Amino acid sequence: MGLNMELDETRQRMDAAYDPELFRTAGHRMVDLLADHLAQTETAQRAVLPWCNPPENVLQADRFLEMAVPKIADRDALANHFAQLVQTMLARGLNLHDPRYIGHQVPASVPVGGLFDGVGAVTNQVMAIYDMGPWATSIERALVYRLGRQIGWSEPTFSGLVTHGGSLANLTALLTARNVRLGDVWERGALRSGLSPVILVHADAHYSVTRSAGILGLGTGHVLPVPPDDRRRMDPNRLDEMLRNLRAKNQPVVAVVACACATPIGAFDPLEAISDVCRRHDVWLHVDAAHGGAACFSPRYRHLVAGLDRADSIIWDAHKMLFVPALCAFVFYRCGAHQFETFRQDAPYLFDPAAPGLAEYDSGLRTIECTKRAAAFGLWGIWSLFGSQLFNDLVDITFSMGRVFYEKLAAAPDFEPLHEPECNIVVFRYVPEPLREAPVEQLGRFQLDLRRRLIESGDFYIVSTNLNGAGALRVTIINPRTEPEHLDRLMDAIRKHGRALLDSTDSRAVQGSQ
Amino acid sequence: MGLNMELDETRQRMDAAYDPELFRTAGHRMVDLLADHLAQTETAQRAVLPWCNPPENVLQADRFLEMAVPKIADRDALANHFAQLVQTMLARGLNLHDPRYIGHQVPASVPVGGLFDGVGAVTNQVMAIYDMGPWATSIERALVYRLGRQIGWSEPTFSGLVTHGGSLANLTALLTARNVRLGDVWERGALRSGLSPVILVHADAHYSVTRSAGILGLGTGHVLPVPPDDRRRMDPNRLDEMLRNLRAKNQPVVAVVACACATPIGAFDPLEAISDVCRRHDVWLHVDAAHGGAACFSPRYRHLVAGLDRADSIIWDAHKMLFVPALCAFVFYRCGAHQFETFRQDAPYLFDPAAPGLAEYDSGLRTIECTKRAAAFGLWGIWSLFGSQLFNDLVDITFSMGRVFYEKLAAAPDFEPLHEPECNIVVFRYVPEPLREAPVEQLGRFQLDLRRRLIESGDFYIVSTNLNGAGALRVTIINPRTEPEHLDRLMDAIRKHGRALLDSTDSRAVQGSQ
Repeated sequence: MGLNMELDETRQRMDAAYDPELFRTAGHRMVDLLADHLAQTETAQRAVLPWCNPPENVLQADRFLEMAVPKIADRDALANHFAQLVQTMLARGLNLHDPRYIGHQVPASVPVGGLFDGVGAVTNQVMAIYDMGPWATSIERALVYRLGRQIGWSEPTFSGLVTHGGSLANLTALLTARNVRLGDVWERGALRSGLSPVILVHADAHYSVTRSAGILGLGTGHVLPVPPDDRRRMDPNRLDEMLRNLRAKNQPVVAVVACACATPIGAFDPLEAISDVCRRHDVWLHVDAAHGGAACFSPRYRHLVAGLDRADSIIWDAHKMLFVPALCAFVFYRCGAHQFETFRQDAPYLFDPAAPGLAEYDSGLRTIECTKRAAAFGLWGIWSLFGSQLFNDLVDITFSMGRVFYEKLAAAPDFEPLHEPECNIVVFRYVPEPLREAPVEQLGRFQLDLRRRLIESGDFYIVSTNLNGAGALRVTIINPRTEPEHLDRLMDAIRKHGRALLDSTDSRAVQGSQ
Repeated sequence: MGLNMELDETRQRMDAAYDPELFRTAGHRMVDLLADHLAQTETAQRAVLPWCNPPENVLQADRFLEMAVPKIADRDALANHFAQLVQTMLARGLNLHDPRYIGHQVPASVPVGGLFDGVGAVTNQVMAIYDMGPWATSIERALVYRLGRQIGWSEPTFSGLVTHGGSLANLTALLTARNVRLGDVWERGALRSGLSPVILVHADAHYSVTRSAGILGLGTGHVLPVPPDDRRRMDPNRLDEMLRNLRAKNQPVVAVVACACATPIGAFDPLEAISDVCRRHDVWLHVDAAHGGAACFSPRYRHLVAGLDRADSIIWDAHKMLFVPALCAFVFYRCGAHQFETFRQDAPYLFDPAAPGLAEYDSGLRTIECTKRAAAFGLWGIWSLFGSQLFNDLVDITFSMGRVFYEKLAAAPDFEPLHEPECNIVVFRYVPEPLREAPVEQLGRFQLDLRRRLIESGDFYIVSTNLNGAGALRVTIINPRTEPEHLDRLMDAIRKHGRALLDSTDSRAVQGSQ
């Protein structure tokens, strides 16, 4: 068979794969499957997590990759096969829209938000240069200005960008701070002599901050935690003291990293006092507001982020408390020009000298991604559809439920809340009668084992953490349809699995002593 | 109004925003709008790029953010508003599915691929730890093994991961190489004394490689280009010479970065010879196969990547020549254990000591993203739906069209192809009669101005580049429905806009001399 005939046949197969009517049929099937799935998930009657051991799940995933496929011209058979694949995805994923999902800082996203992202995926809208994604670039720009105004910047002298997640956002901002503060490190490499530059961080800062120091060639050993106050917040007086000592030694400071809020218990730093200290010492203040930035939308909780507008750089994850699908993280620079300090390069085939004014709109000059997904369609879509009141609602209802849960825990004799929550993150321990006198290590280990039993049962999905060296249970109420009764049921489920765990531990102890 | 009553009202608004029936109605509207859009786009009758100046587009995007929104209980009004938003997105985006889109290395993705990504977005499936995204983790793992076998690794001793784009993939692999090769740099920071470590790169390596050096604290000034051969490929003899000189000085080498293929003209490096040199000198070989990795699927073009399996690390973008929506980039390590050298940290609330075997499946230990989008659903979906023959087809048809276009250009007296294409990337100049004797700088500038006119007209979308210091036109045939007749029409469109540009330049010159 000659090359041309072969190519003709190939082209026919491609026409079938790109057939808009196949897309239409498959798309309608998908929408009904998803709508049914959401409706069922919200009733809280199935397993939140359909637990399956990883090797078995990988085997299942692989099985489809070598399965016989329908004839490419058979649209109905393809649509049926498509539906089977979607059903498998839905049956084997974590059900974040179940009100009993009270887990990580990843939300039950607003469902239609995912549709806007889907439009971007089907049409493959990307950025790097403006003319590659004119609308994706434009909505990102519009959102940067809107969110900047929520932060409290009235003049458009700030700048911002979207990137793929909070870790990458922290890295981007700290890279910029490093380049601004350490001069020629971009071209010549990190420090060649003298004292190592340091980053001063909230003692509970997200692990991506320490990682950033490792990535940037600063060294994780040069990340200095600032001692916290009694609410696990960065203590401005201790920060001041550390900065004074560093200045006395003439040791360079890349940045101070404060949190709004810190991950473990959701503690919000006193940003006004911290920014006063940073300004006095002339150091870069970066605020990780990945979770708490959304408080800017709520008159009731806005006080938590007072002073945020005084930071030099800020990150804010829309895929956390703005309830859009992952990943959509914002980086902001108070001084807009800093956005061009992140890199100092050009790529001639990308940035067009025939249209010099456009470079201002070329995302590739400012983000680690070159080709960048249109990550902000979901946010633009739900904001445009429901108005910004939506974000106020989402913050108010979930933050207030944090308090509701705390009060339930405090009132129960067999639960111990470990802090008063400032937002929707609550850390606690289940302390049944037999463990009341147990050492904290044993009690902590019990929480971790209990959590594993609980999530593998499918009854609830929560997470665990380590607080002051011992395990604890942790929830983030990040589904607006999680109601007080679900929290009561969570406590009952913990009691049930806790008792079973105690029993099995007892019987193991008995067996062990035989 | 009391807090409880307020919260009740808020909860009612949330019920409406999360209503599965609103989702269903909106979803079906979206599918029909997209199917109609695809059908119309494929007929190649609308503007490929609906050009609009950035400030005007940003204003339009912003307008929706402050528009009055429907009452949240009015499902029909919301669905209508939703449809209007989707229509706006479609009307203002770049139409990659138009066969006259022959632009960047970003494909007209297989449309149903975007639906699989849409399922992930609506249900917000993410990773970091296994139980957060059990199915997302499993399909990623299955695909890593399948692609690894395509590369040529028969034993499962390799490892891999998915990240958000080729730039981040290069950064991840080079970070790993840095940590493996430079010992304690992760904790102690980059070099404190001695000669600076260097990275040896293909002279045309993607800008993200140099950026990586800047990010990692190695310094962009320590990226050394290896002189190319006459086909713009890395010359193994020159590489050998450079490595010998570096060894003589005892200067550390972080990695050698080869390309399959390099961006400018799509040149594939002789990987077998290069890997021989690297092994002889015991240096880490990284291959940027973002674009060309897909050749592994094609018996006809596989020879281009012979030797790829001998690299220490490889990147391969599925969102390029595997035709899935952005972003879905793979990183591979030949020695699987290297995946844990990227970072050296833990986050207790993420990685569960109660289930130690699971950490092997926790993506957060290996990727710069903490929360990571389920970026591989699109690839898993179209592979499962159409079988791997799809990828063979896509490579064969687009690579062969590169040759077809080259022959057309070579046969035309007014076009000058600047290289013989190895794949679907072709760089050329339009050289009309009046410019035949023009200096190359003037000719180059003419190409850039011509390209801008062409894309703003909406007639075609191609890109420009800089080759040996002067502008040139560049196409990537990355839509399988771009046929030879579209390429004829492209040449005619270039002639038309070229003549208009010459005329306007002439008239400006006349005006200038008046």
